[in-house]
Amino acid sequence: MQDKKMVKEITSRDADFAKWYTDIVKKAELAEYTSVKGCMVIRPYGYAIWENIQKILDAKFKETGHENVCMPMFIPEGLLQKEKDHVEGFAPEVAWVTYGGSEKLEERLCVRPTSETLFCDHYANIIHSYRDLPKLYNQWVSVVRWEKTTRPFLRTREFLWQEGHTIHATAEEAIAETEQMLNVYADFCENALAIPVVKGKKTESDKFAGAEATYAIEALMHDGKALQAGTSHYFGDGFARAFDIQFTGKDNKKQYPFQTSWGVTTRLIGAIIMTHGDDNGLVLPPAVAPIQAVIIPIAQHKPGVLEKAAELRDRLKNTVRVKLDDTDQSAGWKFSEYEMKGVPLRIEIGPKDIEAGQCVIAMRHSGEKVIVPLDELEAKVAEMLQKVHDGIFRIALDNRTKKTYNCGSIDEIISCRAEHGDGFILAPWCGDEACEDGVKEQTGVTSRCIPLDDPDCSDEKCVCCGKDAQHMVYWAIAY
Amino acid sequence: MQDKKMVKEITSRDADFAKWYTDIVKKAELAEYTSVKGCMVIRPYGYAIWENIQKILDAKFKETGHENVCMPMFIPEGLLQKEKDHVEGFAPEVAWVTYGGSEKLEERLCVRPTSETLFCDHYANIIHSYRDLPKLYNQWVSVVRWEKTTRPFLRTREFLWQEGHTIHATAEEAIAETEQMLNVYADFCENALAIPVVKGKKTESDKFAGAEATYAIEALMHDGKALQAGTSHYFGDGFARAFDIQFTGKDNKKQYPFQTSWGVTTRLIGAIIMTHGDDNGLVLPPAVAPIQAVIIPIAQHKPGVLEKAAELRDRLKNTVRVKLDDTDQSAGWKFSEYEMKGVPLRIEIGPKDIEAGQCVIAMRHSGEKVIVPLDELEAKVAEMLQKVHDGIFRIALDNRTKKTYNCGSIDEIISCRAEHGDGFILAPWCGDEACEDGVKEQTGVTSRCIPLDDPDCSDEKCVCCGKDAQHMVYWAIAY
Repeated sequence: MQDKKMVKEITSRDADFAKWYTDIVKKAELAEYTSVKGCMVIRPYGYAIWENIQKILDAKFKETGHENVCMPMFIPEGLLQKEKDHVEGFAPEVAWVTYGGSEKLEERLCVRPTSETLFCDHYANIIHSYRDLPKLYNQWVSVVRWEKTTRPFLRTREFLWQEGHTIHATAEEAIAETEQMLNVYADFCENALAIPVVKGKKTESDKFAGAEATYAIEALMHDGKALQAGTSHYFGDGFARAFDIQFTGKDNKKQYPFQTSWGVTTRLIGAIIMTHGDDNGLVLPPAVAPIQAVIIPIAQHKPGVLEKAAELRDRLKNTVRVKLDDTDQSAGWKFSEYEMKGVPLRIEIGPKDIEAGQCVIAMRHSGEKVIVPLDELEAKVAEMLQKVHDGIFRIALDNRTKKTYNCGSIDEIISCRAEHGDGFILAPWCGDEACEDGVKEQTGVTSRCIPLDDPDCSDEKCVCCGKDAQHMVYWAIAY
Repeated sequence: MQDKKMVKEITSRDADFAKWYTDIVKKAELAEYTSVKGCMVIRPYGYAIWENIQKILDAKFKETGHENVCMPMFIPEGLLQKEKDHVEGFAPEVAWVTYGGSEKLEERLCVRPTSETLFCDHYANIIHSYRDLPKLYNQWVSVVRWEKTTRPFLRTREFLWQEGHTIHATAEEAIAETEQMLNVYADFCENALAIPVVKGKKTESDKFAGAEATYAIEALMHDGKALQAGTSHYFGDGFARAFDIQFTGKDNKKQYPFQTSWGVTTRLIGAIIMTHGDDNGLVLPPAVAPIQAVIIPIAQHKPGVLEKAAELRDRLKNTVRVKLDDTDQSAGWKFSEYEMKGVPLRIEIGPKDIEAGQCVIAMRHSGEKVIVPLDELEAKVAEMLQKVHDGIFRIALDNRTKKTYNCGSIDEIISCRAEHGDGFILAPWCGDEACEDGVKEQTGVTSRCIPLDDPDCSDEKCVCCGKDAQHMVYWAIAY
C-alpha cells in the first residue's frame, strides 16, 4: 500500500468553526485558492454539487414557465447609472474595464454585479404590446462584486449564480411571481438541500438597491450564525420608468410594466457545509451529492469480491449516482475518504457478506449500519437515501429550534447572547430604522427578516424604544 | 385575427448572404443587439439551441472521463505573461480591468480570452505525483476578445464556449487526447448538427498561441466560405515548463507533464444558420432544435380539433420536443412562423384528418408532406426526424462537394475563383510560410488546414513556388 494518501486531520467543528470550514473546503476538494485575489477555483467535486443544484432548479424554473437567456457580462457606465438607487448600491463595489487591448475605452464598462440594467435595456427593445408580456427570463452566469474580505463559497469577488428577471403587465402578477419564486427557493432548500429556512421580508434598510420589496430565505448554520440563502425582489414599475419600458395595453393606452428579480448563488454550497458537516468532514444531502452511494469491497483480493461489487454497482447505476472504489487503497482509508467527502451511503461487501447473501450499508450522518439482503438492495438504498435526507433535515431543524430565542428587550438580547452564543433572536420591533440601528449597535445582531407568517405582536413593545411593535423580527449575526 | 403579427420578409439568401444571415438572427429571435458594443443578447430560442448543444457535448465529455470545473474569469497580468507565445497572441485583444470600486488595482487583470494560464496555475498547485495524473478538466464559460468587427454568433467580443484542459504523464497520452477530442467534435458536427467537416491540422502560422500543434474541423457554409467549427491543441510540455508544473514519476524522478486544450463556441449556431438555412428562414438539425415538431390545428374552432391536437402532443411529449400552437393566429401565419424558426417537422391536424384517422406531416427542409395514419404517429415522427437529419446533411455535403475545387497553380486558383466564386480550394503546398503568404496575397484565400487523411502529393508541386509539395492544403475565404 505504498504511496498511500492518508485523510488529513481537520480542525474540530466546535473548536474553531471558521477553520473547520476552510479545512473541509480544501480537503474535500470543493474549491482551491488561486493567484487571483478573492477568486476561487471550483474543483470537480464542488462543481458537481453546483451542477446538481442547477439541474433541479433549472427544471423547476422551466416547469414554472421561465426561459433561459444570456446577457453580456459588461454594463456601460451610463446604463448602470439609469436607476438612481441601483447605481448607488452597486457602483462602489464593481470592477471597471477601462482598456480594450491597448486602447482606452471611451466609456468605462463594469463587469456585471447583477443584470437588472441589461435586462431593462433589452426589454425596452422587445416589449411593445401587452401581447409581448410577460417575459419570464433567467440566466446562469457569474457576477463580480469587489469584496474586501472573502471566503470560499460564502463571499468571493466572482461567484456563480442564477438571476431571474421577469416583467409583467400588472403589479399583481409581478407580486405573485416574487412570492412564487421565494417559495420555489424555500422548497428547494428544504426538499433538496435538507436545510430548513425562514421565509421573510427584508426591512427597508436591507432591501436590494432599486427594489420596492425584498424577500429572502434565511437559514441558521450549525454555529448559530444566519445565512441568507436566496432573495426575490419586487421592483414595482421603478426600473420600467427609469428605462422607459412601455407597452400598449388592451385598452390601447401606453403604460409601464412591473418587474421582479430573484437569485441564488454558489453560497448555497457554503450553506450545505455549515448546516450538515461534522468533525469527520462534509455531509451531503442525497439530492445534490455527486456520489450518493460508494461501494467499498472488503478483502477485495479474495475471489469473487470485486465481481460481486461490480454487480451491485451495475444494479444501482441507473437509479443512483453510485461509485465503486476498487483502487488498491485500504478499506480503512476509503472509509475516511468518503466520510470526508460526505457521501450519504457506504455499501460494504466482503467474502462473508457474499456467503450470507447480504451487504452492509452505513449512513454517513449517523454512522448507523444496516445489514441488507442483496435481493432488497435497490429498495433499501432508495429508502436509506430518504432516511439520510430526513435525518439531516431533522438535525438541522433541531439545531435551529434550540438556537432560536425569544427576547423582549435589549437587555434580554444581551444576556441571551452572553449565555447561549449565536442563534436567531426573535424580538419585536416598531418599524423605525433608528431602532433597527439601535439593536445592532447595542447587541451586535442585525435584522435578518420579518417572517412571512408574521406572528401576532399586538401586545408587544419594540425592544429598542418601547413603543408598540409592528413586527416580530428575526435578528442574528449573519454570514 | 386582430393584432396579428405577420412573419416579416427576409432578404433572399443568394441576393445578399450577409444580410440574409442577420435577418434570420433577428427574425427567428436567436439574438439581439445591445447597448454594449460588440456584445449580444442570446434570446431564449437561440439559447435553447446552445443548451441542447451543451447537453449532448457535456454527456460525451463525461463519457470520455472529463470533469467540469470553474476557474476565475480574471487573469492577473503577470500570470498571462508567463508563456511568451501565449501572451503575444492574446494581449493585444484582451479587456483590462484597472479599478475595483474606486480603487486603482495594483496589478491589472484581464478578462479571460482563454484559460490556459489559470489552469496551469491550478495544476502547479495540485499535481505532485504520477498518481495525480491525468486531470481531464473542462469548463463552460464565456470569454472576451476585443474584436474590431463583430457579427452575432460568428464574432462577438464576448462569446460562450467550453474549454477543455487536460494534463498527462506522457506526450503519447496527450496526443491521443488531442485526437480523441477532435473526433468527438467532428462526430458531433456530423451526427448532431448535420454539418460535414474536414478534420485537419493547422499550418505553423495559424497555430494557437503557445501550442505545438493545432487541429481543427473546418466546415463549408452555403455561400462557399469556410468556418472553423472547433479546435484541439497539443501543447507538449511548453506550458508545464513555463509554469513549473512538475510531478514525481513512477521512477521517482521529477518530470514535466504534457497538456492539451480544446474548444467549441456559440459560433456553432452561426454555422447551423449558414449551412442549413434557406429563403424561408432557419432550418434546424433535429438533435438541437428547441422544438422538433410543432402541431398546428386546422380549423381549430371546429369541435374536437383542439382535443385531438392535444392528444397527439401528449402522445409525443415524452420522446420528442413537441409544441402545440393553439393560439388564435391563422394556420397560415403559424406555418410561416415555424418555417422561419426552422422547426424540423410540422404536424397538421384538421376535421377531415380526424375523420380519416390521419394527420399530415411536413418536413421543413424539403417541404415534402406525408399523410400519416394516427396509429403510426410515434414511429413516423421518429423516422421523419431522422430523414430531416439525413436530408440536410446530404444537401450540405453536396454543396461542399460541388464547391470543392482542385487547383494546381496560382493561376488556376485565380480563374477558379473568378468562375465559381467561393469554395474550398484543394491545392498542393511546399510547407514554406512564404508560399502560404504568397497564395493569400495573390488569390485572397488562406490556408484552412492540412487534411488528416492528407492525400498523396508525391507528384505534386507547390502552387506558389513550384517546388515539391509536402501536403495538400484546403484553402478558402473564412469567417
